[in-house]
Amino acid sequence: MSSYVVALDVGGTSMKGGLVSENGQVLVTDRRPTLRGDEAVGAVREFVSDLAARGDGPPAGVGLAVPGLVTADSAIYAANIGWRDVPARSFVNMDVPVMLGHDVRTGGLAESVLGAGRGISDFLFLPIGTGIAGAMILSGRPYGGAEGWGGEIGHIPVFPDGEPCACGQLGCLETYASAASVGRRYSERSGIAGVKAEEVVASDDPLAIEVWDEAVEALSLALATYTLLLDPSVIVLGGGLAEAGPALFDPVRTRLVKRLAFREAPPLVAAALGVNAGMLGAALLGWRAAGVPGAGTGWTMDVRSAPAVS
Amino acid sequence: MSSYVVALDVGGTSMKGGLVSENGQVLVTDRRPTLRGDEAVGAVREFVSDLAARGDGPPAGVGLAVPGLVTADSAIYAANIGWRDVPARSFVNMDVPVMLGHDVRTGGLAESVLGAGRGISDFLFLPIGTGIAGAMILSGRPYGGAEGWGGEIGHIPVFPDGEPCACGQLGCLETYASAASVGRRYSERSGIAGVKAEEVVASDDPLAIEVWDEAVEALSLALATYTLLLDPSVIVLGGGLAEAGPALFDPVRTRLVKRLAFREAPPLVAAALGVNAGMLGAALLGWRAAGVPGAGTGWTMDVRSAPAVS
Repeated sequence: MSSYVVALDVGGTSMKGGLVSENGQVLVTDRRPTLRGDEAVGAVREFVSDLAARGDGPPAGVGLAVPGLVTADSAIYAANIGWRDVPARSFVNMDVPVMLGHDVRTGGLAESVLGAGRGISDFLFLPIGTGIAGAMILSGRPYGGAEGWGGEIGHIPVFPDGEPCACGQLGCLETYASAASVGRRYSERSGIAGVKAEEVVASDDPLAIEVWDEAVEALSLALATYTLLLDPSVIVLGGGLAEAGPALFDPVRTRLVKRLAFREAPPLVAAALGVNAGMLGAALLGWRAAGVPGAGTGWTMDVRSAPAVS
Repeated sequence: MSSYVVALDVGGTSMKGGLVSENGQVLVTDRRPTLRGDEAVGAVREFVSDLAARGDGPPAGVGLAVPGLVTADSAIYAANIGWRDVPARSFVNMDVPVMLGHDVRTGGLAESVLGAGRGISDFLFLPIGTGIAGAMILSGRPYGGAEGWGGEIGHIPVFPDGEPCACGQLGCLETYASAASVGRRYSERSGIAGVKAEEVVASDDPLAIEVWDEAVEALSLALATYTLLLDPSVIVLGGGLAEAGPALFDPVRTRLVKRLAFREAPPLVAAALGVNAGMLGAALLGWRAAGVPGAGTGWTMDVRSAPAVS
């Protein structure tokens, strides 16, 4: 058997790829822009080939994390990329086993097997970035709902009569608390264009404090709802906004506790794998495709010091 | 093997019991008040014995649906009854296998195996009665969360700055939409005491219309949230308030569709087992304890014509 798999995390703007050995060594990393429409599948295929060419012989398997609606065998639909019903085999021009996974849930799988959720069978992995979607790990496995549309915590109506979201609904979590929304909402109120979320978080400007306060309130409402429904052991916060550290964790924790009267709040912990979660999860899928389902449980890599893809 | 199990649904006010054969015949039904504190466990034990005395020989097993925090082997905690860490064996004075289940999830199990959720692997069972709690059937099995506290959809904050709930939180679904709350809120506004939820639903009084409208809005928000998070195939509404039929289903369906912009709403269907769901689910647990895990799947009883326990 070959000593590595090709792992690719196909994001909305870029693809993060790597070669990962069976014992968790990240041998190679690289990234390319995500193409759209007719070119998208070919660009993935070419990236997979080029990565494999850097390994010692053909890969043992290929794992791909992709957005939208997805099964292990097929990328069914992704609005932002523009593909529909793409068989897993179409992403690879070699005769090796391939497995697909949903982007956020594949990141959740990585946090579950070798990150902040290691050893925890029931938790929420919530990356807060340009958008917000969650991976629910239930009974030890990522759960996507009846048809794979689950985990859309970014679009639950935290403020029923709230602001319109780009998705067409009212008062969605994402429209208050994503990194993009925090920047946008501050810019709208202050008239200062192009302010980043991390600048809003760090600012003493009363308008910035107000915007951040509303983001924290929206997050604590969503996490209270998740906790009451799904009783997680832990909530793992990741994505760019989690880099805010105590400025995010402390006020969200305080308000979450306050929102819950008859039960304890689960601990909030930081994701361990950072921007590599999707690619590392794709590596786990690649090893599963290769017939090594237990890969990852023994990996002892210091993930913070692994080569970052972005 | 004996030809029946003893099934008991221990509710907040009454215990509904029955003897149920392996092919789903409800041979006997009976009910008694639920006692509290030190007397509670003895009253269950006595009821189980008295029911068993009406069978032909000892039962093959005993199944019990109980409130609070529960595992298959132990009733860990129930605030309203007042017991703590009661082993399953304490509820039975015979040498027969016993299995416990959470009351709402056991009703959900029954709807899943032989009711409105038959053949559906991912759905929400939401009985709306004096209170509101849900049973989440995920991948074919009732899911209770990491520690068994899941399903508390009645206490998610649908209106973040809403009315205080008896639980100590603000704006909980239950405080707007349970049968008890619909009656209470109308009485508070009208000054007319003791009005029942079904009277409010049927009334042309503008105050009644307002109260019912707020209940419908709260329900549609909670169901939108559930749908976005857990992507159910179906939502099964039960409990006393579901008897309102189209007066409940039609407006909730309309508003749920309106709340969801980028995905379809799951169908809302009526529970099939009515007040018998918990007892029938307890019968399934009894047969599982007896070593017949497949019991129920072949039951073809017309559950609506089965003898009602209440």
